[in-house]
Amino acid sequence: MTDTRFPLPPGSTIGILGGGQLGRMLALAAARLGLDVVILTPDEGSPASRVSRQTLVAPYDDPDALARLAGMADVVTYEFENVPAATVQALNALGAPTAPGRQALAVAQDRVDEKAFLNAAGAPTVAFAPVAGAADIAAALPRIGLPALLKTRREGYDGKGQIWVRGADEAADALASIGGVPAILEAQAKFHRELSIIAARGRDGQIACYPLSENVHEGGVLRTTFAPAAASPALQAEAERIAGEVLRRLDYVGVMGIELFDLGDGTLLVNEIAPRVHNTGHWTQDGCEVDQFEQHIRAVAGWPLGDTTPAVSVEMTNLLGDESLDWADLARDPAARLHLYGKGEPRPGRKMGHVNRVRALAPEQIAASSRRPAPARLVAHEVWDPEVRPETD
Amino acid sequence: MTDTRFPLPPGSTIGILGGGQLGRMLALAAARLGLDVVILTPDEGSPASRVSRQTLVAPYDDPDALARLAGMADVVTYEFENVPAATVQALNALGAPTAPGRQALAVAQDRVDEKAFLNAAGAPTVAFAPVAGAADIAAALPRIGLPALLKTRREGYDGKGQIWVRGADEAADALASIGGVPAILEAQAKFHRELSIIAARGRDGQIACYPLSENVHEGGVLRTTFAPAAASPALQAEAERIAGEVLRRLDYVGVMGIELFDLGDGTLLVNEIAPRVHNTGHWTQDGCEVDQFEQHIRAVAGWPLGDTTPAVSVEMTNLLGDESLDWADLARDPAARLHLYGKGEPRPGRKMGHVNRVRALAPEQIAASSRRPAPARLVAHEVWDPEVRPETD
Repeated sequence: MTDTRFPLPPGSTIGILGGGQLGRMLALAAARLGLDVVILTPDEGSPASRVSRQTLVAPYDDPDALARLAGMADVVTYEFENVPAATVQALNALGAPTAPGRQALAVAQDRVDEKAFLNAAGAPTVAFAPVAGAADIAAALPRIGLPALLKTRREGYDGKGQIWVRGADEAADALASIGGVPAILEAQAKFHRELSIIAARGRDGQIACYPLSENVHEGGVLRTTFAPAAASPALQAEAERIAGEVLRRLDYVGVMGIELFDLGDGTLLVNEIAPRVHNTGHWTQDGCEVDQFEQHIRAVAGWPLGDTTPAVSVEMTNLLGDESLDWADLARDPAARLHLYGKGEPRPGRKMGHVNRVRALAPEQIAASSRRPAPARLVAHEVWDPEVRPETD
Repeated sequence: MTDTRFPLPPGSTIGILGGGQLGRMLALAAARLGLDVVILTPDEGSPASRVSRQTLVAPYDDPDALARLAGMADVVTYEFENVPAATVQALNALGAPTAPGRQALAVAQDRVDEKAFLNAAGAPTVAFAPVAGAADIAAALPRIGLPALLKTRREGYDGKGQIWVRGADEAADALASIGGVPAILEAQAKFHRELSIIAARGRDGQIACYPLSENVHEGGVLRTTFAPAAASPALQAEAERIAGEVLRRLDYVGVMGIELFDLGDGTLLVNEIAPRVHNTGHWTQDGCEVDQFEQHIRAVAGWPLGDTTPAVSVEMTNLLGDESLDWADLARDPAARLHLYGKGEPRPGRKMGHVNRVRALAPEQIAASSRRPAPARLVAHEVWDPEVRPETD
């Protein structure tokens, strides 16, 4: 690499946009490596700001705050994907490098662009169609099939901003129910189970993937992750092939969470990519020597990536709302490793913490578990340019 | 326990006196449990303050700072043993509970009181004599033997404030060289090796000990810890007996480091006790599910103690001075877990970080490694009162 600012030595400062639990766990990981953290968040008293050296409380597009952040941080990263493009441009113009880059954010912020990119990268997805009006839904349904899932193109998470369409006659109502905004119509995935892979790419192009995890959602929210997932070496290899293509084509730096549908016949479809640390990677905190948070900090700071070999098997369970009130019992359980986020009121469904329950690896998990980072591949890939969008339908 | 303030729920605030690396690692452990931290330190930009919610920069006896600390913290603990007694009294008078308690600090702050307490508790030490003037040295030498080690009664660490006395004729010069202050003369310990045990006691009297570690010092400063130490079950049991007596008689709450001389014949002499987390316990960060830092936070917050079973074998090496400049190579080594303290200049001998090198437990280590916390013993012990000192010579 020609950028002599990297690797950032200990004592450098990582800027993080966002003050939630992901930013908090990134800050704790940075601290262990001797790096300082400054948080930019619109919220007072955020979980991340409680463990960071400095916090700027301001909107993400506040010019003064961005100027101060650029002055303090040696690199800026994010805990969420919906960072305004103007924010990243402003930081770059002020001389602050950002990671992951703008391509990854652009792709992750628009579900149509995301699927188009993935398909172009050789990463299969469900069939889909962009939707500008109700007529687009009716026109696409013969190809997409029924039921089809209508989602906003932008924003929305944990199942919000989406609705099932069960016939052409529901098109107008469905579109109105999600606000009449630009949308995407997706075919139903007839999947066997939901998997994900947490992958990282360093500034030198080195790639490291954790083993696949199996995820169980309830009401659109992650409930439990089992890792390493019971998966054949071929399925792990296919997930790593997809991750490698996605990371290289985006010239990505950092950790990415890739949600996958396992169709049960060896096929993996990408559900979505998250250009950040990911809830389905929390198991790595107690499962691997270097967890996804330290891995992300290593990547954005230009450090070598860490080993992703699992040492144990982990069942990660989110503590939602008042489930976190069981902290005392969980603290008493020697098999449970408790992680709490320092949030105030345990409102229903709010992610308050998680528990990693650890047990020894099964023999077949040990056999499949040598996960040292792979050196950078020298194969040249055209880097994805979000300004040049392929036709999507 | 009748103190209804405990256990402290998540969202409570732990006050820590001292802003060094021990305070920093305590703060990181508290964060994982959803607890906030406020640091009191005289130093700007301390390692601990970079990862804590709030910092009061003031001397330890500043009345305004202590009042603010007492107002913010639900319990106050320390990262060093030389906390002024007046500070603890002031905090208690302001309604802030402190842990460990005043007895432990008093005993640990005076080497004569410490050894007298230990002997009364059935914890053997080297022979010793209090020294008020050079004549005391000459008078004690026939019993203590030659060479004898002259140390200040108070202060001094990492080999500072001590000198060997090789004959009665050196008494006056030796005492002058350590400043002519009240001192202790100690017999030379003819030890086989240096061990330590990290022990914790909860607010309910529950005690949990980690396995013994073997420690190598250079120039009076800890260089390397190997844990679990190769030790017979009988030697581990003797160390736990000593730890149990010391913790119970001090009505101790928190983690204590107990340095031991292994005479090689089954006898352990206590070298010194540190009423805090301890450098020889850093291996637990990567060796045990619950490390010494989380264990200390659990204890002072009134939470149940965690499991101290080692999962792996660890070699901990301190990074002194410019050894920390090797961070990039260490980050590349998959067997090395790097911990850096966020300190500025790597001055010679300064503790800048440490590395834990992990490997699988040997079979004999696994056999000796079931270390669940023991329930509180119901045997009544007279609690040590530092105001009532036994005769020491």
